[in-house]
Amino acid sequence: MSMNLQSLKYSNTDGSNPRLQVLDQLVLPNEKVYLDVPTVQDAYTVIRTMQIRGAPLIAIVAVLGLSVDLHTCPKTIQEYNQMDDNDQQVLSYIREKMEYLKSSRPTAVNLSNALEELDQALIKAMSKKDETTTVSTKDILKKAVLDYSEFLLERDVSDNRAIGEFGAQAILNATKKEKVNLVTICNTGSLATAGYGTALGVARSLQQRNQLESITALETRPYNQGSRLTAFEILEEQMPGGRLICDSAAAALMQTKQVDACIVGADRVCANGDTANKIGTYQLSIVAAYHKVPFFVAAPITSLDINLESGSSIPIEERSSEELISTSQAPSHMPCWNPAFDVTPACNISGIITEKGVVEPDQDGKLNVKAFVEKHTSISES
Amino acid sequence: MSMNLQSLKYSNTDGSNPRLQVLDQLVLPNEKVYLDVPTVQDAYTVIRTMQIRGAPLIAIVAVLGLSVDLHTCPKTIQEYNQMDDNDQQVLSYIREKMEYLKSSRPTAVNLSNALEELDQALIKAMSKKDETTTVSTKDILKKAVLDYSEFLLERDVSDNRAIGEFGAQAILNATKKEKVNLVTICNTGSLATAGYGTALGVARSLQQRNQLESITALETRPYNQGSRLTAFEILEEQMPGGRLICDSAAAALMQTKQVDACIVGADRVCANGDTANKIGTYQLSIVAAYHKVPFFVAAPITSLDINLESGSSIPIEERSSEELISTSQAPSHMPCWNPAFDVTPACNISGIITEKGVVEPDQDGKLNVKAFVEKHTSISES
Repeated sequence: MSMNLQSLKYSNTDGSNPRLQVLDQLVLPNEKVYLDVPTVQDAYTVIRTMQIRGAPLIAIVAVLGLSVDLHTCPKTIQEYNQMDDNDQQVLSYIREKMEYLKSSRPTAVNLSNALEELDQALIKAMSKKDETTTVSTKDILKKAVLDYSEFLLERDVSDNRAIGEFGAQAILNATKKEKVNLVTICNTGSLATAGYGTALGVARSLQQRNQLESITALETRPYNQGSRLTAFEILEEQMPGGRLICDSAAAALMQTKQVDACIVGADRVCANGDTANKIGTYQLSIVAAYHKVPFFVAAPITSLDINLESGSSIPIEERSSEELISTSQAPSHMPCWNPAFDVTPACNISGIITEKGVVEPDQDGKLNVKAFVEKHTSISES
Repeated sequence: MSMNLQSLKYSNTDGSNPRLQVLDQLVLPNEKVYLDVPTVQDAYTVIRTMQIRGAPLIAIVAVLGLSVDLHTCPKTIQEYNQMDDNDQQVLSYIREKMEYLKSSRPTAVNLSNALEELDQALIKAMSKKDETTTVSTKDILKKAVLDYSEFLLERDVSDNRAIGEFGAQAILNATKKEKVNLVTICNTGSLATAGYGTALGVARSLQQRNQLESITALETRPYNQGSRLTAFEILEEQMPGGRLICDSAAAALMQTKQVDACIVGADRVCANGDTANKIGTYQLSIVAAYHKVPFFVAAPITSLDINLESGSSIPIEERSSEELISTSQAPSHMPCWNPAFDVTPACNISGIITEKGVVEPDQDGKLNVKAFVEKHTSISES
């Protein structure tokens, strides 16, 4: 697999010596700096300070970070070794670290999903413990964390490739074109995931088929993920027709140039298809609808949260004024409204692309995400 | 008149010694620096480099700069004095400077309108020349430039106050509210004009009536006129509920908070009501229409260019990639599309507010700008 751009470097030399480094996305595109993540505290920090971002990558770094911490952090090893080998005590110790990691970013559902999946893996591992074995609970759980974290890493890349293929096909079907002109927002590529990318992975699949005519990235204020990260990936991957525009120029682009489809990521998708994503996504969906441009969401099925009925129940993270002021030359005491995300109603969405297939509008134009998830979850569990 | 914020300082101590300084808007809001404009070359430079901007202000600075140049620039005075007092020769000399000024910014129609009006004033002044008089053509034309430039300056402020009043009334009529929540883009306040402002002048009039609940400024990438200039004015004028948002958050604002109307400026308005304004205006008009929020354009009648039939004939200035790259942390060689303006179709506009009244949709929903201009031009000429 060609991966020009690695959001993380992971190695595990002897099977129990995991090491994790992440690409510091705050200093891109000027510098390519990999940061060591030797502890849970470091994993929390790189997530919290947004040195890494992107819902899938956040989840992967959290669980890999936990595994590295348990296996290689001297303080953790000491605490761990000093504990009794009591099932509940060992589990509590690990769960405490998981809770801490969970608190790093409130909106992304992938992180809490991954931690829940990990928790189930831990319980399962303990339940399989043979009473006659000499292997301790401590070792079993440590190994279970490592196995799950590596599984999550591998699954991310294969899922992204599937999203890319389903997405490419969905866009070609919707546009009935040989080559398409795409618009995207934020960063949903290699840098948002462990490898291939979600929405940008769809563009990558189209590029590999030689069916990508152009790709336009929105700057994505106030954090500039589009201009810093997606533009960087577009250049690194030599995507055809790569171009950067201001967020506010999307409508003018659709009015004066050819745009065939929008493809965006998602932080959370609700049971009815309402989708929370980077601020500006909702606005882009409106201008796409106005210009009759199909608007697709790409996300791993773990981002589909059927416990949330609709967008109105999604908590939206509001960030500080300072963040906007410091990057927009505003007067230092100007009040700001700086939401990190917005909610795109299902009615503006042409389809939600996952690694299991595409949620498309039914006869009534509704996106039945709940039925889709239930179908694919029951298949995978059976 | 209270003018906390002066975009320019003009004095004329003995009636023939004009002096002009302009506030350097590129260093706001951190520094308040006034730049001397002693020559036509300096006027060209402050316009071209966007140290001053805003269609009305550009026109005023150009003609005041011409007057200052003719009256006080040693090189100009010398050239002027050495000429024969031949009508056509003197007129050509001044017209050459006018042509040069006209080339400073291509899109704004106010500048070319003002220069045409000035040209007519010069011709009129020459035609009134009494053959028995001892006053030279040189002195007559010099005086005509000075008189016209001062007239333009005074007219700008009184016209803006009229725009403010008409606009306040139009918005209160459209919203049927006691107090309104406004959204605006770019800078259309004191800093875009000689004093009061156009679109922001409407907010100012509502504030004076105590009928402004809040005003939200869009950042206005890539030049940040909203965050640098409008935010600055909002604070200086202590406007209630002043707030800054990213351009891409306008839709989320309308979705989750109360927005009663949008008020924007215009660089050019066509005969059919199509309006060219700062990039992002068209996008804002679409999200306003989607949320059923009235969308008003405020501009002096000189911005209404009935020679242009529709928006498709408006030339759109495309600026360099460098401008976007340098302010968005993009990779240095990223291709960009960086249009300075976009065109809002008349169908998205609730009314065009001028100092002569409001162009409102007729029974068929059309904005008949041509009829409005012809009516008011014939009145003022009769």
